[in-house]
Amino acid sequence: MTANVHPLHPAPASGASVPSLDPLVSLITADMNQVNSVILARMQSEVPLIPELAGHLIAGGGKRMRPMLTLACARLLGYGGTRHHKLAAIVEFIHTSTLLHDDVVDGSGMRRGKRTANLIWGNPASVLVGDFLFSRSFELMVEDGSLGVLRILSSASAIIAEGEVAQLTAQRRIETDEDRYLQIIDAKTAALFAAACRIAAVIAERDEADEEALDSYGRNLGIAFQLVDDAIDYASDGTTMGKDTGDDFRDGKVTLPVILAYARGDESQRRFWKDAIEGRRVSDEDLAHANRLLEQCGAVADTFARARHYGELAIAALGRFPDGEAKSALIEAAEFAFSRAY
Amino acid sequence: MTANVHPLHPAPASGASVPSLDPLVSLITADMNQVNSVILARMQSEVPLIPELAGHLIAGGGKRMRPMLTLACARLLGYGGTRHHKLAAIVEFIHTSTLLHDDVVDGSGMRRGKRTANLIWGNPASVLVGDFLFSRSFELMVEDGSLGVLRILSSASAIIAEGEVAQLTAQRRIETDEDRYLQIIDAKTAALFAAACRIAAVIAERDEADEEALDSYGRNLGIAFQLVDDAIDYASDGTTMGKDTGDDFRDGKVTLPVILAYARGDESQRRFWKDAIEGRRVSDEDLAHANRLLEQCGAVADTFARARHYGELAIAALGRFPDGEAKSALIEAAEFAFSRAY
Repeated sequence: MTANVHPLHPAPASGASVPSLDPLVSLITADMNQVNSVILARMQSEVPLIPELAGHLIAGGGKRMRPMLTLACARLLGYGGTRHHKLAAIVEFIHTSTLLHDDVVDGSGMRRGKRTANLIWGNPASVLVGDFLFSRSFELMVEDGSLGVLRILSSASAIIAEGEVAQLTAQRRIETDEDRYLQIIDAKTAALFAAACRIAAVIAERDEADEEALDSYGRNLGIAFQLVDDAIDYASDGTTMGKDTGDDFRDGKVTLPVILAYARGDESQRRFWKDAIEGRRVSDEDLAHANRLLEQCGAVADTFARARHYGELAIAALGRFPDGEAKSALIEAAEFAFSRAY
Repeated sequence: MTANVHPLHPAPASGASVPSLDPLVSLITADMNQVNSVILARMQSEVPLIPELAGHLIAGGGKRMRPMLTLACARLLGYGGTRHHKLAAIVEFIHTSTLLHDDVVDGSGMRRGKRTANLIWGNPASVLVGDFLFSRSFELMVEDGSLGVLRILSSASAIIAEGEVAQLTAQRRIETDEDRYLQIIDAKTAALFAAACRIAAVIAERDEADEEALDSYGRNLGIAFQLVDDAIDYASDGTTMGKDTGDDFRDGKVTLPVILAYARGDESQRRFWKDAIEGRRVSDEDLAHANRLLEQCGAVADTFARARHYGELAIAALGRFPDGEAKSALIEAAEFAFSRAY
């Protein structure tokens, strides 16, 4: 495994606080226990393979980022009921179903440091259990009974699927430009972040402007997370992400670091990138060369800079809400999103 | 290709009418044109692969059995609005998404006499476009705005997915018995037939008893269709169904003909079935032998007899509704379901 670690940012000065998700996690710990109970209860089935496979991924140590956002946004709005527990579980079910299908689509073997479900149980089981979780999420929405929530989450689901198809179409196409790439990650990643936040405003019975603000927070946060994920795939040492570094490179995925390097490259560099994305350069040496090119032209650093931009938009969207523990935690989550390079 | 055609029923006496779907098709032709417009409009996307792939299957000459049932049941109840057009399109979208995923799960190459989408565009595209159509179906349900309809269709979707996983678990397991098999087809096939009929009662604002009656009609009709499909996979000559005869045999699917033959077989026959279902007998000669065994013990004939039983239950469920064109068409559809052996 060859993987340069791009030294993009100096380590923070000793004593300076590093942004983390800890305040967010602390804020919603009690709520998340309720969410986990809902998740566990509602992923059950008489067909044993369903909880077995779903549990592998759901119980398997994800950050629960999206349900955390639903809970934290409900807290931000002073919501005093219990509907957010079920809604947060719904969001996690939708996310899990997309992960199961993603891993089939990508032929992935590792996620969150564990073997993927498709590797263990096969593609058919992953496809069908994903379908089950997705259907179950709609059953839970119907139980909640809000057409507003149903509208937001059904729309987000269709946008996610559309984004996944768009990404598949862009795969191995070096012509994909930055605009197209942003459209794709807006759909496949940011739409669910946005919806996870927005539904909190629906149950708290806030107006459209508050809904829009939370949507904007979630959407920009989602883009920041995805940009950093895509940068880290070239930058990490393979342990931080629980997936193999260079996966995107070997899969011919056109992510922003590659788009920038291709746009900035001379003729021979552009030929290298085209060959790589079209699958003709997949060795460890090729990946090492790719990493050198990315570093020379500042493509990874600039991907992080783009992430910071979106993270700051997320923070700005919170301006209308009252200061307090929830707002601080959500702000720090956005800072965490774009500072994961440290 | 070796395939015995089981001569199960004598050809009907000249002049006797053979049950067909024609009255049902005639009944709802005008409505179906509206449904087709909805389908065409709502499978569109900025991502060209989506309408291209979805259109291959949706426009590809299926019977539109499930949306026909929604339309005909609405007619049976004297429903005078237009909501059934969108609901019928929703039912077809759900069905299409399950077909796309089924073909990936089974590795199928042919459906309705055409190459399958997964063969043409690959498994990833089929998985993701299936997800899109399924999400889109929920968007359309939300547009319709009935929580009752949402409850019925989200529940049916989860049951279908659960049934698909159960079927996957049963695959290549000769121990699967008739009860288990009926549970599986009740979930994977009959649940959507039942829901397609039941939602007509919701929009016609009928009581629970009418809902239950239409649910029963659809469910029993669905079981009858599936039993005959499973019988025909051993009985047909490969042209009537648009799929290869013997597919189930070669895929190690434990369907009712096999369950009956295994239960009735002597030791050597049971060993043959176990070997076949576990994938050790897949030649044309093995299929020919299987067909001989099925014929000797009457397994295919009895599968058709079971189908007749469920078809008659479907017809009985219509007893409470007024006689007329719609009821006659629905009755004949059930007769068609179990008489396709001719």
